[in-house]
Amino acid sequence: MKKSIGILGGMGPLATADLFRKIVTLTRAGCDGDHIRVYIDSNSSIPDRTAAILNGGPDPLPAMRDSLRKLERCGADCIIMPCNTAHYFLPRLQALTDVPFLSMLEAAAKAARGRYPGGTAAVLATRGTLSSGLYQRALEAEEVPCLIPDAAEQDALMRVIYDGVKADAAPEAYRADLETVVDSLSRRGADYFILGCTELPLAAAALGLSVPTLDPTEELAKAAIRWCGFQVKGE
Amino acid sequence: MKKSIGILGGMGPLATADLFRKIVTLTRAGCDGDHIRVYIDSNSSIPDRTAAILNGGPDPLPAMRDSLRKLERCGADCIIMPCNTAHYFLPRLQALTDVPFLSMLEAAAKAARGRYPGGTAAVLATRGTLSSGLYQRALEAEEVPCLIPDAAEQDALMRVIYDGVKADAAPEAYRADLETVVDSLSRRGADYFILGCTELPLAAAALGLSVPTLDPTEELAKAAIRWCGFQVKGE
Repeated sequence: MKKSIGILGGMGPLATADLFRKIVTLTRAGCDGDHIRVYIDSNSSIPDRTAAILNGGPDPLPAMRDSLRKLERCGADCIIMPCNTAHYFLPRLQALTDVPFLSMLEAAAKAARGRYPGGTAAVLATRGTLSSGLYQRALEAEEVPCLIPDAAEQDALMRVIYDGVKADAAPEAYRADLETVVDSLSRRGADYFILGCTELPLAAAALGLSVPTLDPTEELAKAAIRWCGFQVKGE
Repeated sequence: MKKSIGILGGMGPLATADLFRKIVTLTRAGCDGDHIRVYIDSNSSIPDRTAAILNGGPDPLPAMRDSLRKLERCGADCIIMPCNTAHYFLPRLQALTDVPFLSMLEAAAKAARGRYPGGTAAVLATRGTLSSGLYQRALEAEEVPCLIPDAAEQDALMRVIYDGVKADAAPEAYRADLETVVDSLSRRGADYFILGCTELPLAAAALGLSVPTLDPTEELAKAAIRWCGFQVKGE
């Protein structure tokens, strides 16, 4: 019996659409009926995760729990979240349900180990994600060496994410900042870049970034396809 | 109180992803919290609609009803379907629920009247959709003059949809067929083209089709945004 996916989404809505599209386009299928059943709650009322982690902002857990219950009632066999920072709350959400969550960070770390064996990853993510140590622990569990941005690099990266992509700015407005971060981390020894905020694969595509990267949204889509008993196109 | 959208999807999955992305990108929003809550059931087990209408294939209504019940339980305030042919079953689905369905065909017909006043539409759609007269009636209700493909044009169009887009063929493989249909209908008096199968906006974009068109998926997204009390970007 093939399984279904529940997407606890809305964090943000465009990243949710990106994850859903990647699940569809990465599934090996010859017709509509060969695809996975996917339930989505794109819940735009979930409070900002970074603000909750760093600044005591409103707790996003009640709104996330509401989405979780809806996906459970639909009959989702697993739950995935297209927001790196939201994974901070994953253990508390998992404690509320028997439906397994698949972690985007674990999927990214396993893929990093397989695709760049022995290489050093630079993790590009929000300050909220990095301050929680989530990625560092996921990579450590897979024995993947990693670097994180220093204070100046992190400031430039936050401008790319918040004043650039989230503000719907023209890509050229944030090219210099992103290239500076990439050059600086390359000089410090990074072999490839984990695009650990769901805005960053969109930025990298818009700019035609040519360094080796790993897209956690894509790796989560592939992990979910396999978990459900379907085949990833090209595997 | 702003309202939410339920997408009765999976017909097909990529068209469902396209509709969801259009809702997100066409909503005027400055941050995640400004977006509409969207519930989706991408239900790949719904039997083929055209086969049911034309050839006595399996009835898709039970699977569509299952999705409808799930979206109702989530709390969706309206329901939309990213499949033109599925609208054949809309009256029977509407009779099962108090949650209003918004019709893609009505949204397309109203937009056609507004954008191409007095112009003659050519309706490009599957044989199943056109044989049911769904589009012709929706356009007639808005007093929009229309042409439909003749037998040879319809054969070429079905090749574009089934052997081209649905079979994931290279766009150049179906360019000649689509351009022949468009040229032929233009000579017969068409002023613009309604892309009345959710595969066709994808084909038109891939080929850079330069004739005036109307995309019902986009018009449905806009109609749903307005119905929910949100603003369409640029309006």
